[in-house]
Amino acid sequence: MATSSSPLHPYWPRQLKLDNFVPNDRPTWHLLAGLFSTAGVLLVTTWLLSGRAAVVPLGTWRRLSVCWFAVCGFIHMVIEGWFIVYHEDLLGDQAFLSQLWKEYAKGDSRYLLNDNFMICMESITAYLWGPLSLMLVLTILRQKPIRFVLQLVVSVGQIYGDVLYFLTEYRDGFQHGELGHPLYFWFYFVFLNSLWLVVPGILVLDSVKQLTRAQSMLDARPTKAKSKRN
Amino acid sequence: MATSSSPLHPYWPRQLKLDNFVPNDRPTWHLLAGLFSTAGVLLVTTWLLSGRAAVVPLGTWRRLSVCWFAVCGFIHMVIEGWFIVYHEDLLGDQAFLSQLWKEYAKGDSRYLLNDNFMICMESITAYLWGPLSLMLVLTILRQKPIRFVLQLVVSVGQIYGDVLYFLTEYRDGFQHGELGHPLYFWFYFVFLNSLWLVVPGILVLDSVKQLTRAQSMLDARPTKAKSKRN
Repeated sequence: MATSSSPLHPYWPRQLKLDNFVPNDRPTWHLLAGLFSTAGVLLVTTWLLSGRAAVVPLGTWRRLSVCWFAVCGFIHMVIEGWFIVYHEDLLGDQAFLSQLWKEYAKGDSRYLLNDNFMICMESITAYLWGPLSLMLVLTILRQKPIRFVLQLVVSVGQIYGDVLYFLTEYRDGFQHGELGHPLYFWFYFVFLNSLWLVVPGILVLDSVKQLTRAQSMLDARPTKAKSKRN
Repeated sequence: MATSSSPLHPYWPRQLKLDNFVPNDRPTWHLLAGLFSTAGVLLVTTWLLSGRAAVVPLGTWRRLSVCWFAVCGFIHMVIEGWFIVYHEDLLGDQAFLSQLWKEYAKGDSRYLLNDNFMICMESITAYLWGPLSLMLVLTILRQKPIRFVLQLVVSVGQIYGDVLYFLTEYRDGFQHGELGHPLYFWFYFVFLNSLWLVVPGILVLDSVKQLTRAQSMLDARPTKAKSKRN
C-alpha cells in the first residue's frame, strides 16, 4: 500500500502532485502496437500510392520522402493535434490517444503539466507543419516547382521545434522523466524525437542541394534574364 | 519612501521579488539613442557598401535586404549574444548592454527571470541566425546561388522564434509588462518584435518566388536532365 509520501503516479519528478491522474487501463504494448501499426499501414499505403500516383516516376528515396511526410501529417495533425485540443484533460481521460499521451509522458511529464512552451510549440506543429506535410505529399507527387521550398520550410520548422524541445529539457536537468530508463528515456524521449532531427536534417540538405542547383542555372542565364533576377 | 509591500523595481508582475536589482544610471534616451544610432550607422554603411561591393548591380530592394541582414547580424550576435552570456547577471550589472536589457525588460521581464524558453530561443537566435545573417550579406553581395535558400532558412527561423515569443507571453496573460503602456508594451514589446514578423515574412515570400521560378526552369529542361532531378 502506498504511504502518504509516495506518489500515486509513474511520472517525474516524483514529488509531482497529480491528483486527477487515472492510470491507463490499456497495456503499454496495446498503445504502442496501435500507434506503430497505424503509422506502418499509412507508410505502406503511401509507398504503393507513390508508385502509381506520381506524374513522373519517382526514385526510391523520393518515394520514401513522400511516405515520411504522410506519416508526419498523421502524427502532427492527429496525435499532436489531440494533445493541443485535450491537453488539459489528459490526466483523467481514457480515450486511446489520451492513454497514448499518458504513456509517452512517462518519458516527459511536461505533456501532462500544461507546460506553456510545449503547448505553443505543439500548436505550431499541429496547425502548420501538419497540413504543410500533407501538402508536400501532393506537391511531390505532382512535381510542383514549390516542392523543395516547402520541404525546406517544414523541415527547418520541425528541427527548430525539436531543438527547443531537447534544449529546454536539458536546461531543466532532464527532471521530467527517469534519466537513463531504457524505454521511457531512451526510446520515447531520445530516440523518437531524434527522428525529427535526423530525417529533416537530411531533407534540408536535399532541398539546399536541389534549390541551389536550380538557382545556379537561373543565374547562369544570359544578361537579359539577369536583369530580372536580383 | 517605499513601504515594505511596494516593489523596488519597475518590472511586472509587480509582486516579483528582484532583490539584486540595481536601477540603471543611464537615462532611457541615452540607451535608446545608443542602440538606434549604432544600428543606423551600420545600416547606412551597409547601404553604401552594397552599392560598390556587389559583383552585379543590385536593385534598391535587394540592397535594403542586405542592410536588414547586417542589422540582424549585429542585433542577434551583439545584443542578444550579450543576453545569452550575461543573462544571470543583468539585474545588478551597469554595463551599457546590461542597462539596455534592464530597460527593455520593462516591456518583458522574462529577460531578467532566467526564463528557460527565452534562453533557449535566444541561444539559437544568437548562435545560428546571427552568423547566418552575416553570411547572407556576403552571399547576396557575391550573388551566390545559395542566397535565397539561406534567406528562407534564416527568415523562417526568425519568424518561428518570434511567434513562440509572442504566443508564450499571450498564454501567460501578458503578465510580464504593463499591458497597454505606450513605450514599454507598444513600442518595445509589440512594435520592435513585430519587425521580425513583417520583414522576414516579406523575405520568405521573396525567396519562395525566386526559388520556385528557378525550380520551374530546372523542371522544364529536356528529359535527359529530368532523370536526375526528382
